Amino acid sequence: MSRFTPLRSFPRLAARQTTLNVIRPSLASPPIANAGLGQKRGYKRSPQPMRDVMTGEIIQTPDLDASLLKVTKTTSPKTPLPPSKLVFGKTFTDHMLTINWSSGNGWGNPEIKPYGKLELDPSSTVFHYAFTLFEGMKAYRQEDGTVRLFRPDMNMARMNRSAARIALPNFDGEALTELIKKLVVLDSEWIPKEKGYSLYIRPTLIGTQNALGVGPSSDAMLFVICSPVGPYYASGFKPVQLLATTKFVRAAPGGTGGYKLGANYAPGVVPQAEAAKEGYSQNLWLLGDEHALTEVGTMNLFVAFKKPDGSVELVTPPLDDVVLPGVTRDSALQLARAHSKGETIPGLPEKLVVSERKLVMADLVEAEKNGTLLEVFGTGTAAIVSPVDKIGYQDRDIIIPTGTDGLGDIAKGLLGRITAIQTGEIDHPWSVIANPVKST
Amino acid sequence: MSRFTPLRSFPRLAARQTTLNVIRPSLASPPIANAGLGQKRGYKRSPQPMRDVMTGEIIQTPDLDASLLKVTKTTSPKTPLPPSKLVFGKTFTDHMLTINWSSGNGWGNPEIKPYGKLELDPSSTVFHYAFTLFEGMKAYRQEDGTVRLFRPDMNMARMNRSAARIALPNFDGEALTELIKKLVVLDSEWIPKEKGYSLYIRPTLIGTQNALGVGPSSDAMLFVICSPVGPYYASGFKPVQLLATTKFVRAAPGGTGGYKLGANYAPGVVPQAEAAKEGYSQNLWLLGDEHALTEVGTMNLFVAFKKPDGSVELVTPPLDDVVLPGVTRDSALQLARAHSKGETIPGLPEKLVVSERKLVMADLVEAEKNGTLLEVFGTGTAAIVSPVDKIGYQDRDIIIPTGTDGLGDIAKGLLGRITAIQTGEIDHPWSVIANPVKST
Repeated sequence: MSRFTPLRSFPRLAARQTTLNVIRPSLASPPIANAGLGQKRGYKRSPQPMRDVMTGEIIQTPDLDASLLKVTKTTSPKTPLPPSKLVFGKTFTDHMLTINWSSGNGWGNPEIKPYGKLELDPSSTVFHYAFTLFEGMKAYRQEDGTVRLFRPDMNMARMNRSAARIALPNFDGEALTELIKKLVVLDSEWIPKEKGYSLYIRPTLIGTQNALGVGPSSDAMLFVICSPVGPYYASGFKPVQLLATTKFVRAAPGGTGGYKLGANYAPGVVPQAEAAKEGYSQNLWLLGDEHALTEVGTMNLFVAFKKPDGSVELVTPPLDDVVLPGVTRDSALQLARAHSKGETIPGLPEKLVVSERKLVMADLVEAEKNGTLLEVFGTGTAAIVSPVDKIGYQDRDIIIPTGTDGLGDIAKGLLGRITAIQTGEIDHPWSVIANPVKST
Repeated sequence: MSRFTPLRSFPRLAARQTTLNVIRPSLASPPIANAGLGQKRGYKRSPQPMRDVMTGEIIQTPDLDASLLKVTKTTSPKTPLPPSKLVFGKTFTDHMLTINWSSGNGWGNPEIKPYGKLELDPSSTVFHYAFTLFEGMKAYRQEDGTVRLFRPDMNMARMNRSAARIALPNFDGEALTELIKKLVVLDSEWIPKEKGYSLYIRPTLIGTQNALGVGPSSDAMLFVICSPVGPYYASGFKPVQLLATTKFVRAAPGGTGGYKLGANYAPGVVPQAEAAKEGYSQNLWLLGDEHALTEVGTMNLFVAFKKPDGSVELVTPPLDDVVLPGVTRDSALQLARAHSKGETIPGLPEKLVVSERKLVMADLVEAEKNGTLLEVFGTGTAAIVSPVDKIGYQDRDIIIPTGTDGLGDIAKGLLGRITAIQTGEIDHPWSVIANPVKST
């Protein structure tokens, strides 16, 4: 067992933090989306100032400041792989962004430097207590060289919420977005211009305190690495098969399922391997005795039902602090709702009702029996949408229709619209141009 | 969202692993305590050989081999801090042990070398998906220089179970114990001989694959660092106050609470901070609508009740794959059971019944009302026992008796006996002498 700290370490920490007014997310109330520190800038700033997690005092240490960026370019640039050779998350660009934080000094100077190893003390808290969280974003490059990000404000907001959940520091999300723009523009030659290719961006925040006591990490490092990736559907849509999983749970109420923490991922690998052994490609995560549906693998879940009045209901489970608030989930919901109000998306049913509501396995079993089960698909940054054609549940398979090319109409309509926005084919405020960037 | 991998990465991985017969823990059946790889040695070897997680094939790559140890001594030894200056987990000894593993080559050569930074690629899986697990052990040094470990086989067994839960590699636990002995003996001058002092040993296993796909980590590193620590009770026993926590859960059935994963720890820091704000030092973790008791902070939980027949019942919640199988928990249970069968431990009640059974908050509320609530304490490696004198629950406090010196009779009796075994004051097979070690 690790140390039972509060008696001595909490008073100690609290005392130190009172003196230094260190940066800590406010924990008196639930973490606020995009709370940020926002002392200096106005990036969806929380109405109240950030407060120390231990003392409740307003924090005064420096926030993340993009204007302090130092850029050191590589002297030995690598040759990008030919696009056809790219494997997800295996090739990285020439540069990375790093920013250190400490409870005493706040956020340090951002640095873009050659991609290379991190040197960390073996006692660093990330190695022992999983002080780690991340984001997944994509940048697209057009023929004319324009580089676009997709809804970066959503990733920044979620990253701050994740940080608050494990007492890692918050930061000005707009400042980090500016820094990410500079990084992707510097390495933009790495983004293949071919259709379907993009740059996967991985902002990561880890605890780097060099001490084994279990408590808030006194030090942290934020880093961003980038990996050019190919199209998810290189040769046609491939529906996935899910195993409805009751032996393992992904997340329970009061846990961390609603936050993008590293802690949610390693525990899912063995359940996935067990599903693979039974011939299914991913887990359909269930919750409670009713077998409520929550997520599919590492994606959000959507189900479409035919209704008696001829309309179609598109359902996704509510977040309820258990489901990850996916950016693609939110985008799909917003687009589908806009369609139902008249902003037509080709392929989507004329009468569409969009619901965030609880869904249990019995609903799917009944819909299959009645012939009202239209589509099931996952949503996420990597695939955007991923169709499902089979769900193993209680020793039989629920068969789900997919289109003749493997993708149902709703999934296809949403995929087309989201892709068009991401690549700049359709002009939309969700697509944010990274270049030209403001000079530092 | 991170990549939805199975379609392409699982077949790919499976194919590669078939070719190479890589080391993977068996996952067809539940992880077996101390399954180890055990191809070469007989350390509580699992009856069946280890099999690849993806293919089910028997693994053939090299197991951990202590005879391959390479020792590089520091040329600039540090001066140990005076014992009175030691803070838990902040000071580390001169050397560390590292062993790399890869799916293709199995376990590499163990190395004891100067304590220093780890150099890891920023894409390493430990930073992104919490591929991390650890153990906590202690070494004691007697006046004559004898160095003792306490039940290291239990830590090795648990570490292998934790590894299997997140698809990190298993290893020969006896080999790692031998290597740990060599490390602590090399650094034994760092262990204060004063009563109550010891060397806290932290074996850690992290995923080091340099690729962002979510799946079994193709590479890993096992390292061991050591920190001299002072007595937990430097100036008398200090009972802790617990807040019975319903807003957060530590672990749910089907989750990872029964494994010593890093993923169980960072998420507990904010709940602890919230408890601290309300004046309590730690969380009492509850589960389900009945408010079943599971753990206290990062310790196991024991409660003693007076029974109508004059006997005393000592209860701890059952493991049920939710509670961490603590070494101190197991030791306390075994000693208390032996006492109830006549192997008397001073201080423990004459008629003692020992139970692993479900305990709900209503049981505590009723026992307080009836005056039958005798003691509540936590158990763990750091404090051994930690008495509780108050539990905040549903807007009132349950008051728990403690002895005049802050520690109840049962807790004190168990603390005394366990300490006596650990330090060699009482000869017992649980205490394992580290020196002289077999020469390599």
